[in-house]
Amino acid sequence: MLLGSVEAGGTKFVCAVGNEDYRILDITNFPTTTPAETLKKTIDYFKQFKDLQAISVSSFGPIELRQNSPKYGYITNTPKVGWADTDFVGRLKQAFDLPIHWTTDVNGSAYGEYVMATLFNEKINSLVYYTIGTGVGAGAIVNGDFIGDMGHPEMGHVRLKRHPDDLNFKGICPYHGDCLEGLVSGPTFKARLNKSGKDVPLTDHVWDIMAYYVAQAAIQVTLMLRPAKIVFGGGVVSEAFLQKVRSQFADLMNNYVDVGDLNNYIVMPLVKNNGSATVGNFALALKEFNK
Amino acid sequence: MLLGSVEAGGTKFVCAVGNEDYRILDITNFPTTTPAETLKKTIDYFKQFKDLQAISVSSFGPIELRQNSPKYGYITNTPKVGWADTDFVGRLKQAFDLPIHWTTDVNGSAYGEYVMATLFNEKINSLVYYTIGTGVGAGAIVNGDFIGDMGHPEMGHVRLKRHPDDLNFKGICPYHGDCLEGLVSGPTFKARLNKSGKDVPLTDHVWDIMAYYVAQAAIQVTLMLRPAKIVFGGGVVSEAFLQKVRSQFADLMNNYVDVGDLNNYIVMPLVKNNGSATVGNFALALKEFNK
Repeated sequence: MLLGSVEAGGTKFVCAVGNEDYRILDITNFPTTTPAETLKKTIDYFKQFKDLQAISVSSFGPIELRQNSPKYGYITNTPKVGWADTDFVGRLKQAFDLPIHWTTDVNGSAYGEYVMATLFNEKINSLVYYTIGTGVGAGAIVNGDFIGDMGHPEMGHVRLKRHPDDLNFKGICPYHGDCLEGLVSGPTFKARLNKSGKDVPLTDHVWDIMAYYVAQAAIQVTLMLRPAKIVFGGGVVSEAFLQKVRSQFADLMNNYVDVGDLNNYIVMPLVKNNGSATVGNFALALKEFNK
Repeated sequence: MLLGSVEAGGTKFVCAVGNEDYRILDITNFPTTTPAETLKKTIDYFKQFKDLQAISVSSFGPIELRQNSPKYGYITNTPKVGWADTDFVGRLKQAFDLPIHWTTDVNGSAYGEYVMATLFNEKINSLVYYTIGTGVGAGAIVNGDFIGDMGHPEMGHVRLKRHPDDLNFKGICPYHGDCLEGLVSGPTFKARLNKSGKDVPLTDHVWDIMAYYVAQAAIQVTLMLRPAKIVFGGGVVSEAFLQKVRSQFADLMNNYVDVGDLNNYIVMPLVKNNGSATVGNFALALKEFNK
């Protein structure tokens, strides 16, 4: 069985074909240019696979995923030049008479991690996946499904208690200043220290400040969703950083609710090399096919 | 058809019998004393109704609601004297051979408001209900169901960005100091101003500070769950206070996600006089009966 995966990022598209065991049989990627060119490349890629049974797209956003909206399947008011109001699913539907699943990039990653955890015999019904990179976002599975009645979550833009040693930093979110994304996304290293994150050693106090904020986000999502686990991906995240996050999480939670062993609760992705969304897409394409 | 509702509060129990139209046919209440006495009164009350078909309990917590736990149906580690480790559902099951639904007080209220909204022809699949009174808690419906894989939500204990005019107030939560409950629960009036909330006019700046925090909680839950509406109940809440919350919400959100008309999004309960949980219980008892 052949299933298609599109991970539609703002910088590049990763297209892959896999099977019902979520094994990648073929994969390619190309830069995100105009919608016309990028979607043509996507379609040309999948046209090579005559036996394709379904496609799943995990896209940058914001996107419309309310099935009852006339704009269902669109990328909506993205700041990315040329991409606002793009009928992504409609274009694929013109090219392929196939079931097409449509969700956000982080939802796709969340689903991939959820499916992988299940394969590893974790008995879970819920999971949250945060990416901390150029931006901050999260996808969530609750009772085995995605959430969001009025749209998809935008967990990167919550407010947080400010760290006492960071009160003078205004934050860099153009919408909110010091929301989570404005305080911990990759570009905050440049804004705070005038150097790139990869050049800031983990002994620098800024990492403790970052961990304090990320731990608060983990606390919020724990108290609101009570998920079985929280996965952190994206360029800013490392196991050593998560160790700091776990420590701050424990201090801030003060044992108020039990989340089990923090080493199994706040974790790096099971799928390596940012591959969570591709696995998620295969599983979602299969689900869409079986509908 | 006769359905039973138990709203088990820390101060009083409200027991009621209603029908499948959620109409109250009989209602009583009594103070919460010892588990033995209070549960006996509950059982004696329902024994009067020979044709009872199902009972739903919405209880103070924390409670165990994971069906696979040996402690399912228990009130667990509550600080309320005498009530820790109480097998609530087990005691009812001994007395009645009936389907029994079991959830938190705020989940029951959330479900009541959800059901009522549906009766008023609102096409929604999700809703969050906050109570702001002696404590702060919230229940949530997502895709028509309750949430929480590792337990029920505890939304009252999230951290928030502190209001610049409130930095010297430490908050009163014994676990977290300045979490949401520690900053906006009813007893904070006494702690901040040494008077009762009902004696503080809405022109007092403390209400703006409270609204700033409540608006942040609404923003967090909006960005994490994208619910169709957020209902605020409890003794601290009034329509005039919610008007302040809406205004702060709009400022903080800065149009980042669309939630429609704020007057329909951040609202007082549809069911008056704290009756949301009773309606919710009737609906949940019916659902349990039809399982």
